[in-house]
Amino acid sequence: MLSEFNLIKQFFKRDRPGRADLGIGDDCALLTPSPGMQLAISSDMLVEDRHFFAGADPVMLGHKSLAVNLSDLAAMGARPLGFTLALALPAADPHWLAGFSRGLFALADEHGCELVGGDTTKGPLNICITVFGELAPGHALRRDAARVGDDIWISGTLGDARLALAGYLAETALPDEDHAQAAWRMHMPAPRVALGLALAAQPVAHAALDISDGLVGDLGHILAASQVGATLEVDALPAGPVLARQSLELQRRFTLAGGDDYELCFTAPAANREAVLAAGRQSGTAVTRVGRIEAEPGLRFVSADGAPLDLALSGWDHFS
Amino acid sequence: MLSEFNLIKQFFKRDRPGRADLGIGDDCALLTPSPGMQLAISSDMLVEDRHFFAGADPVMLGHKSLAVNLSDLAAMGARPLGFTLALALPAADPHWLAGFSRGLFALADEHGCELVGGDTTKGPLNICITVFGELAPGHALRRDAARVGDDIWISGTLGDARLALAGYLAETALPDEDHAQAAWRMHMPAPRVALGLALAAQPVAHAALDISDGLVGDLGHILAASQVGATLEVDALPAGPVLARQSLELQRRFTLAGGDDYELCFTAPAANREAVLAAGRQSGTAVTRVGRIEAEPGLRFVSADGAPLDLALSGWDHFS
Repeated sequence: MLSEFNLIKQFFKRDRPGRADLGIGDDCALLTPSPGMQLAISSDMLVEDRHFFAGADPVMLGHKSLAVNLSDLAAMGARPLGFTLALALPAADPHWLAGFSRGLFALADEHGCELVGGDTTKGPLNICITVFGELAPGHALRRDAARVGDDIWISGTLGDARLALAGYLAETALPDEDHAQAAWRMHMPAPRVALGLALAAQPVAHAALDISDGLVGDLGHILAASQVGATLEVDALPAGPVLARQSLELQRRFTLAGGDDYELCFTAPAANREAVLAAGRQSGTAVTRVGRIEAEPGLRFVSADGAPLDLALSGWDHFS
Repeated sequence: MLSEFNLIKQFFKRDRPGRADLGIGDDCALLTPSPGMQLAISSDMLVEDRHFFAGADPVMLGHKSLAVNLSDLAAMGARPLGFTLALALPAADPHWLAGFSRGLFALADEHGCELVGGDTTKGPLNICITVFGELAPGHALRRDAARVGDDIWISGTLGDARLALAGYLAETALPDEDHAQAAWRMHMPAPRVALGLALAAQPVAHAALDISDGLVGDLGHILAASQVGATLEVDALPAGPVLARQSLELQRRFTLAGGDDYELCFTAPAANREAVLAAGRQSGTAVTRVGRIEAEPGLRFVSADGAPLDLALSGWDHFS
């Protein structure tokens, strides 16, 4: 059995200069934020059988564990600096650890986000990452910043991750290739860090969040925090390429109330439409305008022809 | 059943102005470190049946979960700023949550350390706190900073927490009052934040860490990182008041290789003896000189009369 010390040394300590003043191996990591910058901090905990299946591929799990945290930085418009990893493992399995750390570091390196410290212990599999980023004061894309008249935008596409889950649960029959493609989307989300940075740079956008529990529930957080309402053009929602081959009813359901999308939902003044499209091009991320922020409280749905739709949907609650 | 949203609102969101620019409720918390300061970051994960007994008192557990993290800041000499809390719970039990948050916030308020964000999910009980502090660049009490000729110091007393465990495990018979007193020490550690700040202020001390896995194992980390050796005067080690009533053999064992002490072990030049004692007085923390850093690798033990002792001891490994 690997000792805790050797486990960290073998799989998580890297012999390369990092941004941190002091990394893994002391009581604390030391990090100096750029002068004048604000620190953005987020923490996510992933639990077996809740956020991922038992026996999940460790490489993908390493990727996703960090991706969901980077997605929170993206939603704030922050530049990733570093993260801590706390890991409870039933056993110190070298195969699992090698895969997990490979997936984790591949994504971390892509975003220049350094593992600076953490903790390992024996226990039911649990992965807790806390991520740190920085941004210029006043540039954060906050949930309470939506204004009446703002457009509502979505990055990338929605619903393929939820469709993959439907496949796993045998709710929906899917050809193998379709399921594999949708499952990739579920297991390997791409955090929209570059888009978040571009949107926060001017800033171009007002409010933003990342869609993790379904668009309707998550957009509801923006509406509540900003004390506004909205209308969504349901058929303008960008369905994932696999979902787009399913029925209109399923497309509406999984784009509106899916989960695990890790796309950004953001609002921006209509005057910034060109700037939003430019931010999308600059970051290599599709952006789609899907609705409008309104003074009237509540969330309304309309179809492609503008007719009101009566849909009963809600977000995902981890304790429901 | 409480929803995740209401759970956070009811037990963890507080209506008081904090130090953070943006606290709980957005994708990230926002915090502005003081200009020119370095950020110290540490993360600890506590698992049921590993770090605490099933059914542990939630008030004490709230205290201890934050205390072990503050202890890491103390060991670095950093001033606490804030923390995130990620919590996996088998169920959203209002009684447990009320107790846990009471214990947590009592200690947080004592140290001016603000809960800025986190995560809650359903799962086997798991508490992961990541804490942030700040310190002046160059003042951190690092493990690799011990120098030949340094004195070795210990804050407070050692071994009572380990004695309480021995009582729970029926390894040692203890009168009820003794066990209650030792158990308080085990469940309610007092992080030595004020002492850490005083030692880092000049800085007075060279190297430091907090003793969580037993003095011998933890001091070994300083020796390895600093590439030095040491001699410990075993009978100079300050045994806890309950342990001090036990046999000399048990006192030696539990002061040297206990666990859950959360005292500081630090080194300082002999020229700073008066300054170390002043830092102890200033922070209201007893400090005891227990040995010396030497060039010869390895850790040696001597008794009160200076005679070498042959002791076979090691630290606690979370995967052994």
